[in-house]
Amino acid sequence: MTISERTLTGPRGALPHGGVLVDRRLDADEAGAVASGGLGSLMLTAAEVADLRAVASGAYSPLVGFMGAKEHQSVVEQMRLPDGLLWPIPVCLGLPDEARVDGGRLALRDDQGRLLGVLEVTEVFDRDRRGEAELVYGTTDVAHPGVARVLQAPARAVAGPIQAVVAPLGGPVGSRALTPSETRAAFQARGWASVVGFQTRNPVHRAHEYLMKCALETVDGLLLHPLVGPTKDGDVPAEVRMRAYEAILEYFPPSRVLLSALVAPMRYAGPREAVLHALVRKNHGCTHFIVGRDHAGVGSYYGTFEAQELLASLPADDLGIVPLRFDNAFWCRRCGAMATAKTCPHPDPDHVALSGTQVRSMLAAGQLPPPEFSRAEVASLLIDASRPRP
Amino acid sequence: MTISERTLTGPRGALPHGGVLVDRRLDADEAGAVASGGLGSLMLTAAEVADLRAVASGAYSPLVGFMGAKEHQSVVEQMRLPDGLLWPIPVCLGLPDEARVDGGRLALRDDQGRLLGVLEVTEVFDRDRRGEAELVYGTTDVAHPGVARVLQAPARAVAGPIQAVVAPLGGPVGSRALTPSETRAAFQARGWASVVGFQTRNPVHRAHEYLMKCALETVDGLLLHPLVGPTKDGDVPAEVRMRAYEAILEYFPPSRVLLSALVAPMRYAGPREAVLHALVRKNHGCTHFIVGRDHAGVGSYYGTFEAQELLASLPADDLGIVPLRFDNAFWCRRCGAMATAKTCPHPDPDHVALSGTQVRSMLAAGQLPPPEFSRAEVASLLIDASRPRP
Repeated sequence: MTISERTLTGPRGALPHGGVLVDRRLDADEAGAVASGGLGSLMLTAAEVADLRAVASGAYSPLVGFMGAKEHQSVVEQMRLPDGLLWPIPVCLGLPDEARVDGGRLALRDDQGRLLGVLEVTEVFDRDRRGEAELVYGTTDVAHPGVARVLQAPARAVAGPIQAVVAPLGGPVGSRALTPSETRAAFQARGWASVVGFQTRNPVHRAHEYLMKCALETVDGLLLHPLVGPTKDGDVPAEVRMRAYEAILEYFPPSRVLLSALVAPMRYAGPREAVLHALVRKNHGCTHFIVGRDHAGVGSYYGTFEAQELLASLPADDLGIVPLRFDNAFWCRRCGAMATAKTCPHPDPDHVALSGTQVRSMLAAGQLPPPEFSRAEVASLLIDASRPRP
Repeated sequence: MTISERTLTGPRGALPHGGVLVDRRLDADEAGAVASGGLGSLMLTAAEVADLRAVASGAYSPLVGFMGAKEHQSVVEQMRLPDGLLWPIPVCLGLPDEARVDGGRLALRDDQGRLLGVLEVTEVFDRDRRGEAELVYGTTDVAHPGVARVLQAPARAVAGPIQAVVAPLGGPVGSRALTPSETRAAFQARGWASVVGFQTRNPVHRAHEYLMKCALETVDGLLLHPLVGPTKDGDVPAEVRMRAYEAILEYFPPSRVLLSALVAPMRYAGPREAVLHALVRKNHGCTHFIVGRDHAGVGSYYGTFEAQELLASLPADDLGIVPLRFDNAFWCRRCGAMATAKTCPHPDPDHVALSGTQVRSMLAAGQLPPPEFSRAEVASLLIDASRPRP
């Protein structure tokens, strides 16, 4: 199917990827009933649990389960599902060597043994993990956290459609973890025909605020959509980040911004993951998506603008969401404004810029970064959170 | 024809409206030869001279001349040319009561008698000026400067394709008056696949700079495209404005901005003229177009967002250029940034805002407005220009 620009900017907002919002949710009673038939069980990793939730809630529409060999190969090699629909990254369920699949269904459980859902097994296959690492991640270096997860996954994967419980989450994140149908309903209730999504796994400093506000100026609303699934060591905990996001909301009109948490694993797959991030936001009802420098990258595996270039190279109808590509932002003393290299002609010494390392060491020492870099309300929270607990 | 989003964002830039860039230019020798056959002459008003130049240079593509009765009626009533192509405002050539049209061609001259071009007469018709005022301008009030021009035009209009000299202009404006083929070549030379156009007939203060920079962040380049044709009394003279635009250029990277002057009359037709302004920028190669509050309005004839709403209501393929709709911008002391009501939650007292009247009286008194309102370099120029000459 094709999705016209008219559709994207019209009052209906974005169509889900593939045209229909997937809903594979079960309530806990249904799940128990389905799984009560003495099914074999499979224990999922934390990343697989997050993927399962994303499939069941429709965040990964049109996926209705975990991929088989044909989907895996097509996605890895062509960046498309076998029917031609754009899809950048395999979503697989590892089958440990010792696991046996007898019947047609598997009960899916977390590492506490809690029932999450059910898989209708269609196939067990040997997952080409090395090919996946090379073509999707561009490297087989196990120092890459996403590649390590692929290469350390079981040699076999089990495929098929799922149904799963999308249980309420606890803590400050829980109330913010809206499903795609919930964000869509929220957009509709606010009358937003065009919505820009912002993905982040970091606290929001003024540079990000600037990108979000630039983008918001020409659409109806902003979805501040931090990813809160499994991330790598060293990333700021989700609970701290959520408080920091709530602090930055004070600088936005409440009628123009929605803060929601996306439960999904980070893969750090750079350009390919930028495409996934865009499609997931399209499924949540966004019409536009912010892509910064080195989007979803880690270390120096990807070129600074590689993710933006991949998104720009895709036919607009295939992507179905408008990528808004931004350079790094900074405060310029001579402009007296936030800007990027695209909009400011002045040299580096005029700019207030801090490296991630500098910021972390300032925060750890209890020092507020300059207000041109970080809102004091946000920085104070991060300072508090970085203090050792008594 | 349809113009897909892919075309708009691809390396070719925007297609001209209707698909082909019109070129009806003659050099002076050719014009002299064409007009030497003892043709009758018609003297054009200043606004008609500017329209003639816009047609000949392709700025009004697909128009190749002045409209006849059928085009006039279709444009006035349907906002479309008879073939269905979007076109918002009649472009007519008045035929004074005393003028006679004998032959098939007319020599077109300015009020100094200089030869401008030639009209191949296809039709003389009674122009429904009142209907045009009502449907295009939404009023028949002669206090409206665009309506006054329509209602005071001759009762008859003469139609047909033209050829005309697009002569170099003198003064600070002249070297900046690029034709659509020249702006397109400039975009290509700079490698800009996406370009946002900014229409203005006023000096550029920080609010406009903010809109332009917001828009520029997500495209390749900016066309700062002031209109320098006949405007109404009280507007700042084009020469002064051009110096002020050159001053603001110092706040942009030279590789990202092109300053060019659009020679065309202002009609102050609000929403309908916003559509014309967008199509003219599409013809110049822009893929995006900034639309502010009360775009091309005058007095209080149009609603604040009426122009934006009309543009948003048009099918994207019909328009073929992406309108970027902005609210009014101001400096917010609490945000420490430029913002609009869409991106700032703070109340009016936190905002640095001056009315046009306040600014004019400050400038006339030789006072610099606050730097949050106007760059000192720009304000100084306007103060100098507003001083009575000795």
